[in-house]
Amino acid sequence: MDTDELDPWSATTAELYRTLRARLDGDDPAVLATIVDVDGSAYRRQGAKMIVVPGDDSYGSITAGCLEGPVVDLANAVLDEGRARVETFDLMNGDEWGLGLGCNGVIDILLEPLDNNFGVALDALANDQPVTVLTAVESSDGNVTVGDRTVLDSDLSSLGDADRNRLPSELVSNESDVVESLRESASSKAVQLETSAGTVSVFVDHLEPVPELLLFGNQNDVHPVARIGREAGFRVVVASSRGSRSDGSDFPYATRVVSTHPTEIDEAVRAPENTYAVLMSHNFLDDRLALETLLEGTSVPYVGLMGPRKRFEEMQTEFEQEGVQLSQSQLERVSTPVGLDLGSDEPIQIALSIVSETLAVHNDRNGGRLKCREGPIHERVTTP
Amino acid sequence: MDTDELDPWSATTAELYRTLRARLDGDDPAVLATIVDVDGSAYRRQGAKMIVVPGDDSYGSITAGCLEGPVVDLANAVLDEGRARVETFDLMNGDEWGLGLGCNGVIDILLEPLDNNFGVALDALANDQPVTVLTAVESSDGNVTVGDRTVLDSDLSSLGDADRNRLPSELVSNESDVVESLRESASSKAVQLETSAGTVSVFVDHLEPVPELLLFGNQNDVHPVARIGREAGFRVVVASSRGSRSDGSDFPYATRVVSTHPTEIDEAVRAPENTYAVLMSHNFLDDRLALETLLEGTSVPYVGLMGPRKRFEEMQTEFEQEGVQLSQSQLERVSTPVGLDLGSDEPIQIALSIVSETLAVHNDRNGGRLKCREGPIHERVTTP
Repeated sequence: MDTDELDPWSATTAELYRTLRARLDGDDPAVLATIVDVDGSAYRRQGAKMIVVPGDDSYGSITAGCLEGPVVDLANAVLDEGRARVETFDLMNGDEWGLGLGCNGVIDILLEPLDNNFGVALDALANDQPVTVLTAVESSDGNVTVGDRTVLDSDLSSLGDADRNRLPSELVSNESDVVESLRESASSKAVQLETSAGTVSVFVDHLEPVPELLLFGNQNDVHPVARIGREAGFRVVVASSRGSRSDGSDFPYATRVVSTHPTEIDEAVRAPENTYAVLMSHNFLDDRLALETLLEGTSVPYVGLMGPRKRFEEMQTEFEQEGVQLSQSQLERVSTPVGLDLGSDEPIQIALSIVSETLAVHNDRNGGRLKCREGPIHERVTTP
Repeated sequence: MDTDELDPWSATTAELYRTLRARLDGDDPAVLATIVDVDGSAYRRQGAKMIVVPGDDSYGSITAGCLEGPVVDLANAVLDEGRARVETFDLMNGDEWGLGLGCNGVIDILLEPLDNNFGVALDALANDQPVTVLTAVESSDGNVTVGDRTVLDSDLSSLGDADRNRLPSELVSNESDVVESLRESASSKAVQLETSAGTVSVFVDHLEPVPELLLFGNQNDVHPVARIGREAGFRVVVASSRGSRSDGSDFPYATRVVSTHPTEIDEAVRAPENTYAVLMSHNFLDDRLALETLLEGTSVPYVGLMGPRKRFEEMQTEFEQEGVQLSQSQLERVSTPVGLDLGSDEPIQIALSIVSETLAVHNDRNGGRLKCREGPIHERVTTP
């Protein structure tokens, strides 16, 4: 059922986390490759990751296909040496425009044998906590070696340091502003830092937990949304009304299937800030109760409501009649009619429209065509 | 590789056409169920189709799951009788709001044994021609029976009439205005018509050929776009630069893989009005030449160009230098940066963003959030 079996190169972050956790649990060696710097326009940005396992299989992507081969070749050497290294790939091959968007530009890649040090990051992520992984990627300071690492939790406290040297603590505390600003923009960047004994370049890698897509309903149309949601990288949870026919085995794309009452759907929300809910029970009362419960009882940023605008207006009338007062900010979290405006009514296209909207909201975007967007496609990462 | 194997209920129109063609070719019986009328807010609209085959398997959807079971049950009777019938399902079950969006409302469904009459429609569609299928769904005129049918091509000429009575020709010619207006809005509707001997209700079903997604490139990032494109219902064509490593077997989601030079990519376009091109060779010159060729040599409505805005500006500078004059309307067909603004940079999410944009353009939409759209989600179908 994993889509990485179909096309490992386009494995999602969720799939990469799963693969890393499985390698660690099984004591199976692997090399993690991470883009730490890019000069010029590239297909993927800093922080993009690929996993290489013995036998030369790989998961994930660092370019559109230019560097995956060379990095796989290097991985065996990295495993043999048992320590991290950074390789610079200079692909400036006479492309006079510098805009080939392919095998050109200069890309720095951190290659490291997977160890339990990354495991503490995975543990935090599995508990829906963002983490910041700081890794020395260049050093003229004799006390700091490439690969030295500190993993910070969301309070900027240091997590465990199994299998790896920690970065000097004053270096980490000096970077707290940078860490904060990268966390806000959910991005990753290499930063040059002066120490008393030299210069250290630290890659500040901000990792977000996998977002969760909570689908309330159990009719056929849940399936395509679950499928596309899973493919797009969400952890999918299906919440079915108690007493419904479903026994859970019906939803192969869901990570969890819970049986719930609409007034208790908040109990199915594990990480509210990172949960995107879609109400699609096709039952007016159930959807209304679930909407009220999610808006009042949780801070989920997005509640998609299936059906026409008029249906939500009817719900609002009922809220008034029942004395349910919803604030403006609560109402703004409601997305109805649900989805992006793709103009389609086929189930899989409706699913595409819904999942695309949740992704856009997750990334603080509005959908709409990029050609019409003002300013750059990616936010510029500015650090203090 | 067919997604209908995973979830037959959410089979795309492309998959339904393929299934119908295979049943006809194999002389295998099947029943085609089509929504001809809906009272109230429904999950699917007029024209939505489901195929039932002996053994009770079904493909496609007519509701979110309320009527699929009863329609499968009825299909055997329809096969036994060997003739079309219309069934009205009254699901008004005391839902006082009428907005349950589930098992309520009144839905009329045409059930008919699949015959070669529908085959002529499939043939035209396979040749990238839209067709309009007119079917009597109610009649008080003794000369017209439910299921009588005329299939019109894009010039409103009648196609063959194997296995089925044709509708009276004056009835069809009287409807030419209705057919035209439904064709413009790409929608389907039942229309009441007076004949000299009674009243006939004719379901005017406008069927569009499957749109084609033409991907120019052969790097890894073509795969997720091909996959999501196929899942979303496109016929996917991959055009690789001649001399590239690919031998075609690399693209399991493509219906066709062609080897081409960028200046000859127009030859890969089979139905220009219905083709959505994405240039993702990652080679500046190849993309530029392909762009010029598609804009000047074809009428494809959409040419997505991978890369930042600056890359297209560089191309425009080169067009000027080379004396290539592109008109405003040609430039408007270019979509760059390609995709909807979802804010993601993972390969599968980029693919989702691109396919969502092509769907939106195909349906004449802008891909923004439906909650922000003015007016109804679906265009009202107004007929003269």
